[in-house]
Amino acid sequence: MTFLVNNVLIIGPGLIGGSLAKALRERQLIKQVMGFGRQKASLLEGVRLGVLDGAVEDLPVAISQADLIVLAVPTLTIKDYLPLINTHRKPHTTVTDVASVKGEIAHAIIAAIGEVPSWFVLGHPIAGSELSGIAASDAQLFVKHKVILTPLESTEIKALALVSAIWEGVGAEVHTMTVEMHDKVLAATSHLPHALAFTLVNTLADLDVSIDVFRYTAGGFRDFTRIASSHPVMWHDIVLANKDAILDVLGSFKQTLASLEEAIASNNSAAILQQFEKAKAARDHYSMLMLQQEKD
Amino acid sequence: MTFLVNNVLIIGPGLIGGSLAKALRERQLIKQVMGFGRQKASLLEGVRLGVLDGAVEDLPVAISQADLIVLAVPTLTIKDYLPLINTHRKPHTTVTDVASVKGEIAHAIIAAIGEVPSWFVLGHPIAGSELSGIAASDAQLFVKHKVILTPLESTEIKALALVSAIWEGVGAEVHTMTVEMHDKVLAATSHLPHALAFTLVNTLADLDVSIDVFRYTAGGFRDFTRIASSHPVMWHDIVLANKDAILDVLGSFKQTLASLEEAIASNNSAAILQQFEKAKAARDHYSMLMLQQEKD
Repeated sequence: MTFLVNNVLIIGPGLIGGSLAKALRERQLIKQVMGFGRQKASLLEGVRLGVLDGAVEDLPVAISQADLIVLAVPTLTIKDYLPLINTHRKPHTTVTDVASVKGEIAHAIIAAIGEVPSWFVLGHPIAGSELSGIAASDAQLFVKHKVILTPLESTEIKALALVSAIWEGVGAEVHTMTVEMHDKVLAATSHLPHALAFTLVNTLADLDVSIDVFRYTAGGFRDFTRIASSHPVMWHDIVLANKDAILDVLGSFKQTLASLEEAIASNNSAAILQQFEKAKAARDHYSMLMLQQEKD
Repeated sequence: MTFLVNNVLIIGPGLIGGSLAKALRERQLIKQVMGFGRQKASLLEGVRLGVLDGAVEDLPVAISQADLIVLAVPTLTIKDYLPLINTHRKPHTTVTDVASVKGEIAHAIIAAIGEVPSWFVLGHPIAGSELSGIAASDAQLFVKHKVILTPLESTEIKALALVSAIWEGVGAEVHTMTVEMHDKVLAATSHLPHALAFTLVNTLADLDVSIDVFRYTAGGFRDFTRIASSHPVMWHDIVLANKDAILDVLGSFKQTLASLEEAIASNNSAAILQQFEKAKAARDHYSMLMLQQEKD
């Protein structure tokens, strides 16, 4: 049997790392996938659920045996593992991550080991849900989803090719772009919406009528706030790690919101209608394009 | 056969009015339901699709023949029909509406005919979707959804009972509250989220990288912005009609957003985490309660 790679080590297998492990196992793309994490019980559950082949006891040994290492811990924790990986990895081993922010990871790698080495492929699967944890692992999570890789000039072609093959192997569509572009795009499409959803739920929870408020919500509200059920630590890390791009797009959002507020306060009927029509047209246009892409 | 009421007239049958008509017909709760609207083709489509028994040619005649009239036109248009209804209705005829705002409708009724008459029951089904138009009519739309009625002191018990029976007949759960409470609750749970979704989509559409931005959106973004595909005229009317309550809750939202922005800008890790944890806890708590209610 030919595998894409033999031994895979997932550090921090939660929803994303666990789903990748499960998909790699089910599709028989690798020889074995081991998991390392601080919560032993969660790793053992992963083994019991068929997500992992085994739970790592000794991390340096596991690193020295891996051909591919996937860092799936929260964004700000990635740096903690780099010295150990740098010391114990085999010369050919490729390392990648799945964090939602790429610039901060590049900086953290440089701070930890002096450079972003040629064997580290910065990556980000655009998939997930408000669920978290290894028990939520789903082997289909990446099917027809986009994975963005942000290779640097120094990145080895062979390492990039392996990471691409791994993601394509589990059904994803791989794109590459610069670190800066990635962080700008994700700030707008993911990080800002999460910040707004958390903020809306907190606003409503603080109202004097909050019990009634939540009691009378309907489907639209539930869709709108679903992402406010996301993992707080993960999102804490993301907003700090992508601070500049998020504050930038948040500034644009606040301006657009102020212009709507002004239009409502001054009964500017034409301006309100123009803003809503523009938004509907953009959303309908792009959601049609997105659906079409998924069918292709 | 005993009907809840014989002749129903829906003025402005779109998604909500059409779905009510279709549900009343399918459940044989009424003798017939006629539709009046400015777009003749849409009414005829409603008849062809089995949503309506017929399309009204002469509105005064149809009003004089109806036992129950449901005003399902956009919020700010309701007032245009009141003088005609007041003049031509039969003495026992009950009238209700489905607008998302109740205070402004009460004011419009008073401005048009001097008072909110005892036969007018202010109502609002909390149901809908980003779809609109009679072709989207769904006889199951109101099943297990809440309908809020906001009777005044002057409202006839008989009229209130009929409107309640109609909504319960199509599967909804009827609640009553004051006009002020309704408008405050809906500003928070529906009107503000719509304003935010429209604003987010416009913000992204204006970015210099907007094509890339929309190209790399995932499921969370699509859920979050689904309501930005809603009917612009309907939402224009709603935000103007519930202006005070919306500006009020928008003010609270802006304060909460400013405190998150400040926490991000100053790297206040504890404050960010506290806000995200609070939001997740509130959302998880209330969505569990909501799901439980739906199962009951």
